[in-house]
Amino acid sequence: MKIAIIGATGYGGAELIRILNMHPEVSIHSIHSSSQQNKPIHESYPHLESITEQVLQEIDAEKIARQVDLVFTATPSGISSKLVPELLNNGLKVIDLSGDYRIKNPTVYKEWYKKQPVDAYWLHEAVYGLTEWMDEDLTEIKFISNPGCYPTAALLGLAPLVKNQLIDTNSIIIDAKSGVTGAGRNATPTTHYPEMNDNLKIYKVNEHQHIPEIEQVLSEWNAEVGPITFSTHLVPMTRGIMATMYADLTKEIKYEQLFQLYQESYQDAYFVRIKEQGMFPCTKEVYGSNFCDISLAYDKRTNRVMVVSVIDNLMKGAAGQAVQNLNKLLGIAEQSGLDFVPVYP
Amino acid sequence: MKIAIIGATGYGGAELIRILNMHPEVSIHSIHSSSQQNKPIHESYPHLESITEQVLQEIDAEKIARQVDLVFTATPSGISSKLVPELLNNGLKVIDLSGDYRIKNPTVYKEWYKKQPVDAYWLHEAVYGLTEWMDEDLTEIKFISNPGCYPTAALLGLAPLVKNQLIDTNSIIIDAKSGVTGAGRNATPTTHYPEMNDNLKIYKVNEHQHIPEIEQVLSEWNAEVGPITFSTHLVPMTRGIMATMYADLTKEIKYEQLFQLYQESYQDAYFVRIKEQGMFPCTKEVYGSNFCDISLAYDKRTNRVMVVSVIDNLMKGAAGQAVQNLNKLLGIAEQSGLDFVPVYP
Amino acid sequence: MKIAIIGATGYGGAELIRILNMHPEVSIHSIHSSSQQNKPIHESYPHLESITEQVLQEIDAEKIARQVDLVFTATPSGISSKLVPELLNNGLKVIDLSGDYRIKNPTVYKEWYKKQPVDAYWLHEAVYGLTEWMDEDLTEIKFISNPGCYPTAALLGLAPLVKNQLIDTNSIIIDAKSGVTGAGRNATPTTHYPEMNDNLKIYKVNEHQHIPEIEQVLSEWNAEVGPITFSTHLVPMTRGIMATMYADLTKEIKYEQLFQLYQESYQDAYFVRIKEQGMFPCTKEVYGSNFCDISLAYDKRTNRVMVVSVIDNLMKGAAGQAVQNLNKLLGIAEQSGLDFVPVYP
Amino acid sequence: MKIAIIGATGYGGAELIRILNMHPEVSIHSIHSSSQQNKPIHESYPHLESITEQVLQEIDAEKIARQVDLVFTATPSGISSKLVPELLNNGLKVIDLSGDYRIKNPTVYKEWYKKQPVDAYWLHEAVYGLTEWMDEDLTEIKFISNPGCYPTAALLGLAPLVKNQLIDTNSIIIDAKSGVTGAGRNATPTTHYPEMNDNLKIYKVNEHQHIPEIEQVLSEWNAEVGPITFSTHLVPMTRGIMATMYADLTKEIKYEQLFQLYQESYQDAYFVRIKEQGMFPCTKEVYGSNFCDISLAYDKRTNRVMVVSVIDNLMKGAAGQAVQNLNKLLGIAEQSGLDFVPVYP
Repeated sequence: MKIAIIGATGYGGAELIRILNMHPEVSIHSIHSSSQQNKPIHESYPHLESITEQVLQEIDAEKIARQVDLVFTATPSGISSKLVPELLNNGLKVIDLSGDYRIKNPTVYKEWYKKQPVDAYWLHEAVYGLTEWMDEDLTEIKFISNPGCYPTAALLGLAPLVKNQLIDTNSIIIDAKSGVTGAGRNATPTTHYPEMNDNLKIYKVNEHQHIPEIEQVLSEWNAEVGPITFSTHLVPMTRGIMATMYADLTKEIKYEQLFQLYQESYQDAYFVRIKEQGMFPCTKEVYGSNFCDISLAYDKRTNRVMVVSVIDNLMKGAAGQAVQNLNKLLGIAEQSGLDFVPVYP
Repeated sequence: MKIAIIGATGYGGAELIRILNMHPEVSIHSIHSSSQQNKPIHESYPHLESITEQVLQEIDAEKIARQVDLVFTATPSGISSKLVPELLNNGLKVIDLSGDYRIKNPTVYKEWYKKQPVDAYWLHEAVYGLTEWMDEDLTEIKFISNPGCYPTAALLGLAPLVKNQLIDTNSIIIDAKSGVTGAGRNATPTTHYPEMNDNLKIYKVNEHQHIPEIEQVLSEWNAEVGPITFSTHLVPMTRGIMATMYADLTKEIKYEQLFQLYQESYQDAYFVRIKEQGMFPCTKEVYGSNFCDISLAYDKRTNRVMVVSVIDNLMKGAAGQAVQNLNKLLGIAEQSGLDFVPVYP
Repeated sequence: MKIAIIGATGYGGAELIRILNMHPEVSIHSIHSSSQQNKPIHESYPHLESITEQVLQEIDAEKIARQVDLVFTATPSGISSKLVPELLNNGLKVIDLSGDYRIKNPTVYKEWYKKQPVDAYWLHEAVYGLTEWMDEDLTEIKFISNPGCYPTAALLGLAPLVKNQLIDTNSIIIDAKSGVTGAGRNATPTTHYPEMNDNLKIYKVNEHQHIPEIEQVLSEWNAEVGPITFSTHLVPMTRGIMATMYADLTKEIKYEQLFQLYQESYQDAYFVRIKEQGMFPCTKEVYGSNFCDISLAYDKRTNRVMVVSVIDNLMKGAAGQAVQNLNKLLGIAEQSGLDFVPVYP
Repeated sequence: MKIAIIGATGYGGAELIRILNMHPEVSIHSIHSSSQQNKPIHESYPHLESITEQVLQEIDAEKIARQVDLVFTATPSGISSKLVPELLNNGLKVIDLSGDYRIKNPTVYKEWYKKQPVDAYWLHEAVYGLTEWMDEDLTEIKFISNPGCYPTAALLGLAPLVKNQLIDTNSIIIDAKSGVTGAGRNATPTTHYPEMNDNLKIYKVNEHQHIPEIEQVLSEWNAEVGPITFSTHLVPMTRGIMATMYADLTKEIKYEQLFQLYQESYQDAYFVRIKEQGMFPCTKEVYGSNFCDISLAYDKRTNRVMVVSVIDNLMKGAAGQAVQNLNKLLGIAEQSGLDFVPVYP
């Protein structure tokens, strides 16, 4: 299969190049950028020298449609909203890594993204690509809206609890922590090395656009889920997300039952690893890989459950999950070209 | 006033030396260690070369009592328990940085610390030294048990809410994050640089010995407080604690009222800074200083309040607060010799 | 003495505020910025909240001259060149932290700085402020050009060797490494956290503007010194410079003689610490302090000497040395208000 | 081909598992450890959970010889010296990652390694595995001694200059910097996170055991090479080595000629990338990959050449090069199973 990558100069785009360069069934036909046309990608990313000679091209939907089968749009929110319909209307399949097509309710989108709602037809067509919990036959799908990094970590962690009505749906608190690649490639005062090194920050309190995304999916799984509490921290590290999640159990339940539930829920999920009792994940153990590691703890003193979930935000939280979805579209094993061993340490 | 430091080779002890070396009213008469007697301290800490020529001495309570007025015990839990009564019985004043005399209930101490309970008489005498909330006339006090690092950050953040009955006492969740000096100076696999760098870990889930300490103080403030949820993370940074705290409000209250409550609660507290609405603290902004910065957020969607509190764990979380307590004992301004500007960046 | 700081929003300016806020003999009368006038400094640097209420003011030389005695210009090269004469002509004393008045030869300045030469009169008047090696009676001096960060580390390390004709003057190689605050406060792609974290970079090869500064001073000390080799690396840390320096000895000399020479050279220098044989410095041991730690090694296999010198680039490499020079101007002890114990760890 | 890994619990061993787990032509038959027998490897390295179920086995040369064709010994110096002959005498091929069989002169080995010399017969048989400069037909070789991490970076950088008699052989200075994985997996005070974070250290001055290794190879290439100057620094990062190398040119030569020489020298070397003029490498651009990136600079002021070379110390500096050598032994493309795109950022 031939694919193109639009938005190749961001971190999501570069990670797609890293993965697909080693993928056995897919080849990158072209890469595109709105800002750096005609420059070889290794000018932006010297680590790609000798690995790819590809030159960034303009974004011409018709032309792209004549040459490839599927496009990854790793473009920012607000750009994808306009670009994606054009690509789809030209017959391309699209996997969109932006947030533009994730929120089904245009009013909610507008409120949290502060942007104009997207094309209603394609919004309706978009399949939310949380791979482990998609029911659709993906080989028929044209358009996947790839989940956000935080929602991926949070939703994989909460799914068994929420789907099985085990927790008080008003008690969900997600304390999320991310490495700094989550903020993208643009240099800003917040991400200036001396200000971020040896520092821990909290940001976008009660304002993060991933809040409605998480709530939307949770309430699809369990209609009673109301507003959640979700906070986000910047940790002085390059990659990685940890979501520490708390909820009140609705009934008494033993740890062993919870553990078994999680194991069964993910028994066919190559990329989800449930840790043994008393073992907890750390972000480095998934570094550079597509794994999501999950641990559970039950505190009988409070009858509260804690779920800890970690991913590499550029992999399972972005490019990795996008390729996992591509594999599903192709009808091949989900780990094809994706079974990187984590880079540890 | 002449003081001695026991346990000078740990991070708490070294930070006491840093502070007291510049203190206008106090001088370090001697430093003591159980393991490195007769060695100059700058062999353990070369950064102290030319600053102090002091040599580590044995721990002889009687001899120390003849020479100084007050002793800081920066010794580990299990050591302080035995050492402190000896010092006190010899007429010394003591400020103990260990956890041994914080927990008033011996059964609870034994359960969480896995150690034998301490001397009952001196346990009863010990004043818990959360400086901003001590009512005692400290100039009369002989023995202060200095609070733990996490409890300091958590309790300063929660005090106004709990004391004023504003939150559901069963809903308190504290998600705490610490720099790696919190783990002490002993090299361990967990704190080996390649394993900790660029990594985020969660540890001691539902087992941390600071849980009963926080609960004890909260329930003194408000008898209805039950068990809390408290989790601890290791962040790849040297110093700093951030406690992100969540609780359900018992009634509707405006952000402005909460803010005013916090400002009033801490109006005389030199070291507590309440951030303006929309501003949130980061650990580097208190680096090397004794400040505790606190922010509030109110989410009307969930009627939940979030409090974020940051400290330098070696300063306000240990040696800094110990010296603040010393200043109180001496009846001098609490910031004497402690008014370091944070080292930023 | 009343002073003003111009360029208070850069890292050098902020470090001056940190130091002078605790200085016993000096008070900051006003702070100035070309870009953020009328804003309180704690908007730029929230760590200064409650410490100073000062508001950034415009830069009006005449007005400043009516109110203070001395000005620190912590402005970028190219700005100081114009600003400094104005201040001096208004009768102010000036300590300039930029590179504009360091290079005595205007042609050399133009070649390396790519900027127009500065005012010839004041260039001639400027005293190069490498404190430990200034012969002038500073109480008579009006204008000090504060050394660069790399030159400070390199020159303090090389001085005894060069002044005593012990090394082949054509063999000097300086391999310098710096923390990222050396690049200033402006966010750039190079200093974007994800690109700099866990990374080591080399930059400005054979082009660094500190090369002519080092050569100028070395050749004042020893006319035979020719061009040197000097390279600069960015290390993933906030503060600190290490200069590793190599030179061929002109005659056989024992390590002990070298060591004695260094001890004697710096016996009256409070801020220079010569390490014992076999001990080597690290940058953290001077963190936040004004010390320069120096070690020597002699390799008889090659008859080469190696000198290792470390400083905190914002302290001894910038603001600290500037205050040390201020103390000299005032005729008070050089360590007044500057005797911070390094913040370790 | 079936292989075994001895010393699987060190960083070199874990990296071999990461690589070989994805290798198309080789399978890991067994892994061995002297200290953790009968434990699954994922107890030591939880990131390997679900990736391999292998259990650490005892080290029994005869038994191993019955089951596999080749053994990687990722054991420490002093262990390999005894183990390797046993394995070879049992008919196994061996690639040894320790330093024990690198130094051909037993007296030199004893002097620098402070250990008893190794078996003379097998020392003579050992082929030094700097892959790009091996002339032997490797398919006939039984025993490869894999180069050290620093020597790999230094020698690849210096080879064209030294082999072509372009530099004064007495002028070579190598200033090397390494990430902390270079110090191995054992937790030590030096590598304790709070002591290493935000810090830069120099260590083993004039004592590093890689000095005789570099000198031995250089003098094989050019008999005139005498003792070199080589210094080593610990940089606060996980992986990566940068060697900054200086030498006096023996004659005038243009940058372009040097550049062309390097390009030609490495035109068939998949893993060596020569950077364009003015571009310099950084360690992150080879992170997790087997590349060695090299830049050149010529300074006409001093007639000195500078070569900068970077590698990932666990890949090209250890396990990666070992697998590259394995590929050569197998007669397959050197990049088979090794063509990882660097993980950036």
